[in-house]
Amino acid sequence: MVGSVENGGEAVEILPDHFDPTAVVPEPLPKVVESDGELVNGKSNGDREIVLGRNVHTTCLEVTEPEANDDFTGDKDAFMASILARYRKTLLERTKHHLGYPYNLDFDYGALAQLQHFSINNLGDPFIESNYGVHSRQFEVGVLDWFARLWEIEKDEYWGYITNCGTEGNLHGILVGREVFPDGILYASRETHYSVFKAARMYRMECVKVDTLVSGEIDCADFKVKLLAHKDKPAIINVNIGTTVKGAVDDLDLVIQTLEESGFTHDRFYIHCDGALFGLMMPFVKRAPKVSFKKPIGSVSVSGHKFVGCPMPCGVQITRLEHINALSRDVEYLASRDATIMGSRNGHAPIFLWYTLNKKGYKGFQKEVQKCLRNAHYLKDRLLDAGISAMLNELSSTVVFERPWDEEFVRRWQLACQGNIAHVVVMPNVTIDKLDDFLSELVEKRSTWYQDGKVKPPCIGTEVGSENCLCTLHNK
Amino acid sequence: MVGSVENGGEAVEILPDHFDPTAVVPEPLPKVVESDGELVNGKSNGDREIVLGRNVHTTCLEVTEPEANDDFTGDKDAFMASILARYRKTLLERTKHHLGYPYNLDFDYGALAQLQHFSINNLGDPFIESNYGVHSRQFEVGVLDWFARLWEIEKDEYWGYITNCGTEGNLHGILVGREVFPDGILYASRETHYSVFKAARMYRMECVKVDTLVSGEIDCADFKVKLLAHKDKPAIINVNIGTTVKGAVDDLDLVIQTLEESGFTHDRFYIHCDGALFGLMMPFVKRAPKVSFKKPIGSVSVSGHKFVGCPMPCGVQITRLEHINALSRDVEYLASRDATIMGSRNGHAPIFLWYTLNKKGYKGFQKEVQKCLRNAHYLKDRLLDAGISAMLNELSSTVVFERPWDEEFVRRWQLACQGNIAHVVVMPNVTIDKLDDFLSELVEKRSTWYQDGKVKPPCIGTEVGSENCLCTLHNK
Repeated sequence: MVGSVENGGEAVEILPDHFDPTAVVPEPLPKVVESDGELVNGKSNGDREIVLGRNVHTTCLEVTEPEANDDFTGDKDAFMASILARYRKTLLERTKHHLGYPYNLDFDYGALAQLQHFSINNLGDPFIESNYGVHSRQFEVGVLDWFARLWEIEKDEYWGYITNCGTEGNLHGILVGREVFPDGILYASRETHYSVFKAARMYRMECVKVDTLVSGEIDCADFKVKLLAHKDKPAIINVNIGTTVKGAVDDLDLVIQTLEESGFTHDRFYIHCDGALFGLMMPFVKRAPKVSFKKPIGSVSVSGHKFVGCPMPCGVQITRLEHINALSRDVEYLASRDATIMGSRNGHAPIFLWYTLNKKGYKGFQKEVQKCLRNAHYLKDRLLDAGISAMLNELSSTVVFERPWDEEFVRRWQLACQGNIAHVVVMPNVTIDKLDDFLSELVEKRSTWYQDGKVKPPCIGTEVGSENCLCTLHNK
Repeated sequence: MVGSVENGGEAVEILPDHFDPTAVVPEPLPKVVESDGELVNGKSNGDREIVLGRNVHTTCLEVTEPEANDDFTGDKDAFMASILARYRKTLLERTKHHLGYPYNLDFDYGALAQLQHFSINNLGDPFIESNYGVHSRQFEVGVLDWFARLWEIEKDEYWGYITNCGTEGNLHGILVGREVFPDGILYASRETHYSVFKAARMYRMECVKVDTLVSGEIDCADFKVKLLAHKDKPAIINVNIGTTVKGAVDDLDLVIQTLEESGFTHDRFYIHCDGALFGLMMPFVKRAPKVSFKKPIGSVSVSGHKFVGCPMPCGVQITRLEHINALSRDVEYLASRDATIMGSRNGHAPIFLWYTLNKKGYKGFQKEVQKCLRNAHYLKDRLLDAGISAMLNELSSTVVFERPWDEEFVRRWQLACQGNIAHVVVMPNVTIDKLDDFLSELVEKRSTWYQDGKVKPPCIGTEVGSENCLCTLHNK
């Protein structure tokens, strides 16, 4: 409804007789269900209720039936153009003030605009052409080869595809693991992305949650205890190459060592590496434990819209070819094979990735990773200087700090929050200038939130360790 | 490799020392696994081997590392521009000669090109804003409302989202069914899309295949037998609103009646309607059985890139709000809710759909549906006139006919084939002129295939009914 109201009364839609706008229920949403604490990352959030975003039904842009003479008057075109222009302005502002999610918002795909006229669909297997000719497999396989080289697996030993997002990569990796070990138990740390627990539920798998260290890494002592308690069944492990909230990197080598020490031979476990963001940054960080198929891992997934940057979500999935034959089915209708989660697949995403990888190359990414880590350290240091509790994991560009008191401020900077903590993910588009703007606004606002002493800044010692907490208790 | 070879030797890539091109295995593909006949639509294809498409690894466009002076020389930019220009030419040609898949390739989203600069992501629930501000939920909910109205469900009673493709819709619908009836048995006809059987496998559900009539519709007599054999467990039914190969529409009313007659009360079954293509065409066809939430159905999915037309695959999923609460989890990190299959979601797709729905409206779609059905009849009649076996289901624009003998011809026109049949799906972009081109080429080529009498046109009586078959046996 608002679409026409905002237009200052110049509505052009025809509302049919039986479509009474006053009859529209403004809040058609289910009651907010309190999380059961199981699928939410990390610790329970105690008494604090989860703050959910606004109800979109009250602000949606209704689709309206064109009038008979629209082609002649051009009213409808003008109306839509005005909506799009306003929307573009919002996107510009929102892009400028974004800090909370690990998306690189800085890209220029102008050279690819010419391709938007085509319905590009890589339905089926990336390596086997389907009969549908309007595809981009030649770009897709080029991108996959680049990642196979990054993660050290030969061209004739891997299989993979460009996914719709990190979740699809996790769904695929865990499904492959389950097909390899039908009675395997899924192990994942408490700070694992919610898609992994969703997979366990979807696939009807037994799932064991493993504790985490304060850093957010998997606690291998607890992992060992849990492995030993379930020695009779194979293990399928999700290893986080950068957790969602704290950017913690699980120690892959220690995970493998723990498995071996617990009596799991290499033919009795399957490791999926969820490298959503850091899967692409880690290879360029010195001292980082290497993600490599030379180690006994089964699959790696990474998001394409995060560090690379892409107009729409996408991801890269690489797995061992030997595993995929069990999973796949030839589909004659396609003249191709069905080994992905989705059937039809966005053919534009591989071209975006191909374009950026070609432009930047390994060296370009290395430079950007260095810049991100440097800027993340800058942010953490300035926060601590200002007396604000903050933590930055060594291999990460995710700066965790006390949750701002004002939800309006959280929304303005689009911060991701959990319990008493918030984070900023420093991506290539996050400059020092932008961080300075954010810092000065935070410091200024914060002085008003806590000025009368009635509310105090939250203690986040449990979440980030007391040494990083500057609350009144820990900052003596 | 070919990327640089095709460039006439003007390769600009740096190949590192350890990256020996001669070491690249040209055929890193698994052996072609014969289908087990279970996941392929329809009847077994007897002795004919499935023809798979070409191996893409031999033609892929390698990603190459930029040279240090690329910015200065512009060589790399020029190289990439030349690849893209050539690719665009291929897309134009391939789009022009496409007939086999149900994609409307005729769209103009020029007005939306301005949005390609933004990373638009509707992560989480469409109805609850997440903290990530660069989203398009206001368009998404507008589109969902349009479909809710089409399928007769109130705004405060439905839930839905824009999916990545028809498969995601089926995965979601069947998952909701399974969550409603954890021990339910999935029933689907043999000619059901392969994604439904994939879902059964992923979700570890018992799955019963139901026979089909020659038309491709579900055989409700066989359905009844199978229901009665499993009366102890609830039923989850996939109803095809247009099968993949023959475009057959299952009779929803008869399916419901069969359930009732077999003793299944409304609280013991869940119906998911897979309306991939025809879900959007059917409402505009007179005499077609209506898909409506006034009937005891649980969910409907439809593809967005098919009849509407969209640069990338997408779909619309509508389900009952009452069912979704059981499935969903609040995710504090997002300030939203996780009730979709994917987490991050393409925010451009809803804008494409919103744009087209606004431009065309219900009336525009009605006109296009009429045109498609008319042109499909034209094609079927001309095929029969030329002595070529052909069938067209009453409510469909999918013309089924004898599979062309020459695979090169099949690839040129991008026909989808199965066993001895092929099909053309008449979409809004398929004009009479295009059909005439296709027909004259087919008739001309066909006369050469069969001229010496050694090879005969295949009999497709089993697939399409003897009354539609013009083979030497049936055409007496």
